[in-house]
Amino acid sequence: MGTGYAPVVADQADHGLARPSEYPQFRMPALVAELTQFASIPSISADPEHAGDVQACARWLAGRLRRAGLHRVGVIPTRGHPVVTGEWRHAPGLPTVLVYGHYDVQPPGPAGRWTTPPFSPVLRAGSLHGRGTADNKGPILAHVTAIQQHLRATGRLPVNVVCVFDGEEEIGGPHLAAFLAGHEAARTADVAVVSDTPMRRTGVPALVTGLRGVLTARLRVRAAGRDLHAGHFGGAVPGAAEIACALVAGLHDLAGRVAIPGFYNRVHAPSPAERADAAAAAPTDADILRSAAASSAWGERGFSLYERTTMRPAIVVNGAGAGSVGSAARAVIPAEAVIELNVRLVPRQQPDEVAELIRAWLAEATHDLAPGGVTVTVTFGAHVKPVVISVDHPAAGAAARALSTVYGTPPVLMRSGGTISAVSTLNELGIPLVLMGFSLPDDRIHAPNERFSLASLRSGVAASSLFLSEIARLR
Amino acid sequence: MGTGYAPVVADQADHGLARPSEYPQFRMPALVAELTQFASIPSISADPEHAGDVQACARWLAGRLRRAGLHRVGVIPTRGHPVVTGEWRHAPGLPTVLVYGHYDVQPPGPAGRWTTPPFSPVLRAGSLHGRGTADNKGPILAHVTAIQQHLRATGRLPVNVVCVFDGEEEIGGPHLAAFLAGHEAARTADVAVVSDTPMRRTGVPALVTGLRGVLTARLRVRAAGRDLHAGHFGGAVPGAAEIACALVAGLHDLAGRVAIPGFYNRVHAPSPAERADAAAAAPTDADILRSAAASSAWGERGFSLYERTTMRPAIVVNGAGAGSVGSAARAVIPAEAVIELNVRLVPRQQPDEVAELIRAWLAEATHDLAPGGVTVTVTFGAHVKPVVISVDHPAAGAAARALSTVYGTPPVLMRSGGTISAVSTLNELGIPLVLMGFSLPDDRIHAPNERFSLASLRSGVAASSLFLSEIARLR
Repeated sequence: MGTGYAPVVADQADHGLARPSEYPQFRMPALVAELTQFASIPSISADPEHAGDVQACARWLAGRLRRAGLHRVGVIPTRGHPVVTGEWRHAPGLPTVLVYGHYDVQPPGPAGRWTTPPFSPVLRAGSLHGRGTADNKGPILAHVTAIQQHLRATGRLPVNVVCVFDGEEEIGGPHLAAFLAGHEAARTADVAVVSDTPMRRTGVPALVTGLRGVLTARLRVRAAGRDLHAGHFGGAVPGAAEIACALVAGLHDLAGRVAIPGFYNRVHAPSPAERADAAAAAPTDADILRSAAASSAWGERGFSLYERTTMRPAIVVNGAGAGSVGSAARAVIPAEAVIELNVRLVPRQQPDEVAELIRAWLAEATHDLAPGGVTVTVTFGAHVKPVVISVDHPAAGAAARALSTVYGTPPVLMRSGGTISAVSTLNELGIPLVLMGFSLPDDRIHAPNERFSLASLRSGVAASSLFLSEIARLR
Repeated sequence: MGTGYAPVVADQADHGLARPSEYPQFRMPALVAELTQFASIPSISADPEHAGDVQACARWLAGRLRRAGLHRVGVIPTRGHPVVTGEWRHAPGLPTVLVYGHYDVQPPGPAGRWTTPPFSPVLRAGSLHGRGTADNKGPILAHVTAIQQHLRATGRLPVNVVCVFDGEEEIGGPHLAAFLAGHEAARTADVAVVSDTPMRRTGVPALVTGLRGVLTARLRVRAAGRDLHAGHFGGAVPGAAEIACALVAGLHDLAGRVAIPGFYNRVHAPSPAERADAAAAAPTDADILRSAAASSAWGERGFSLYERTTMRPAIVVNGAGAGSVGSAARAVIPAEAVIELNVRLVPRQQPDEVAELIRAWLAEATHDLAPGGVTVTVTFGAHVKPVVISVDHPAAGAAARALSTVYGTPPVLMRSGGTISAVSTLNELGIPLVLMGFSLPDDRIHAPNERFSLASLRSGVAASSLFLSEIARLR
């Protein structure tokens, strides 16, 4: 793969680059080979069986930071998976940029749904396909490559840099706050840049101005002491699947609104101005359906799909399991069912308060829907608060200039419906945030056949490099 | 295991045996060791990966029939798993008894729910625990042992016998009819005995007078082309799990009746006399809940639990799957969901007609519940027709006398809510049927920790032995 790629300096015309001198040379083939290695390590933070792979991935990344020329590189233990750090702080009086990324990945999901194996990255149609290529290993390598090329070309960086690469972002980043509390240089950074959001579309960059929060909940329905013979007992005793389905069916009303009393209490209705801005710049319903490869919309009536996914909260069923399906199916009444819920929160919603609303609704719904003796328990996972990001800070201007230069068009300001636990954590520390991503809306992050285009990788290096230079000019 | 068991001839008093001379000797330890071997083979007919084990199990059983002294023993290929046969037909002018059983088993289900591994049978508290011990390997061995001991003691059997041991009962017996069409001795048997139903309770035998039929259906909901990021798209596009749950929730009305239009059209309401008989002899609601280890009832109001499980049809969700649950859970909107339905049919319901009703309901429900572009497909598996079994045939009297002798109390006449495909097939051939089982209602067939008590094994041998003798007296 990749021997056909020329150094990016030969490609100025492609990117409309105004200041080629700011682009240190790097070789795409080597970068693609590195991303292939990086994405081959199944650093699935959610799966305890992959804890060793997460460690191995952290060590690989630390080695990469050392080769880039960063100092004080370390794999820092936490109470969970480690944080990988490195820094260059030899520019006294200049700002410190915290580069945040995460080297952990989502579980791959059903193997049969991947065209090529999730952890054997393959280059197809200009994109590297594999779990983690876009989310977030490709963007991490773009930043590290930019840093390395600055150091190689000039022996220094334009600003001070601290890299913080998390191993637990996909499980809600439970230990990042504790890590930051112990790392003064990171905690007191002047700005943090995070490339874990999508671009507006191919060729059009975006600065993200808001993220939804998340709260996960696992419902466990216990209908009987054991699975029961479907013939002998069918029609006489409750089945866990039926109860679980009835609960899920009750989560939304016919207008697509969440039916949990109080759920929308603190939700701010978008103002006419916000709606107009969104309508002008944000993805249209058709754009969003196209990105989703979906033919129909769903959800809360009266709001555009962009509004539904960014300004409105949502509850999604991530998983449902009862008995067995397919060739393992058995003629039983399953005793137990599990439902995995994913609640996306918008500003002003308080995770703890929403958890209590869910708990109360569930108690009521169980009472209404399930016979006595059926128990439904709920356990909540880590939550992440929603974030609104100001673009009034000069760092946003620096990012906008860097992106405009690389892509030849200014970034669109838009919210994302996604959640980045670290952004919430950094926001609570008061660090100004820049969310400029390099992946595309249809890069299938969290889904089978995730991919990251080589064009994104190449522009990502350029944007990161220029961003550091632009921050230096703010002094 | 088992060295403490005396030959059953020493145990007459335990069983109130009236005619000990009719009991050939057999040694329990050897029989328990054989059942342990037999139940160690994971003959899971539903799982293509276990096709070799089904074959191995058939060969094991054929060897056992040869050792018993049966003739013309064979592992007969079908278009699916083989049938194991053997016969003894040296009593001209005497009736021929077809002994039907099945050596295939249900999938074990979640390994974690078994106290000991499903295919490593373990003797605990007087029962052998393992998949298939009760359903149906233990009862098969009881019959084979009875045959062997008759042959050893007298050199002959009291009647002609043809054994037909099916390898596909748990998947609806798709090839049994074709097998029987080619096996004249079996097809023209004078009576068939099947021990694949439970006793009324410990110490109280039962003759089963009816079985429900079954129709399986797999619903597949396809909501999008791929799993989608729950943050980026949550609230804007349909999720397969939500649609599937809404469909399942619509299967029943608030009175616990199946809500599919026309579903009850042909269902016969039990007469006052039938209800009185059932109330007098059949398990009470409390009995059934105790067998199920369930604390609450569910289902069609206005009927006892016995009526609900035997005279009334039912739809059970055997399995539900969407996305992933537990540590493999991913923050996605699953594109696909699968629901496994198990429809239990009662006399006069026609499987094909019910399938059409389900198809029509599903089309309507999908239209009402799912946005355009969501597809729901249904595929139906093998079906088995419901059966009513007359007890007017003299063979029923022979069975009643054998059971009365062994257990010291006459058999209760009762229907079962279960389904035995072979019984439906044999019934359509016009062969009089005797359904006398040896397992207990709480032997957890189809569920984790299935078991078969040594008392059942021992009495089963005795009952089978006496039954053959009683049939001989009918001439």
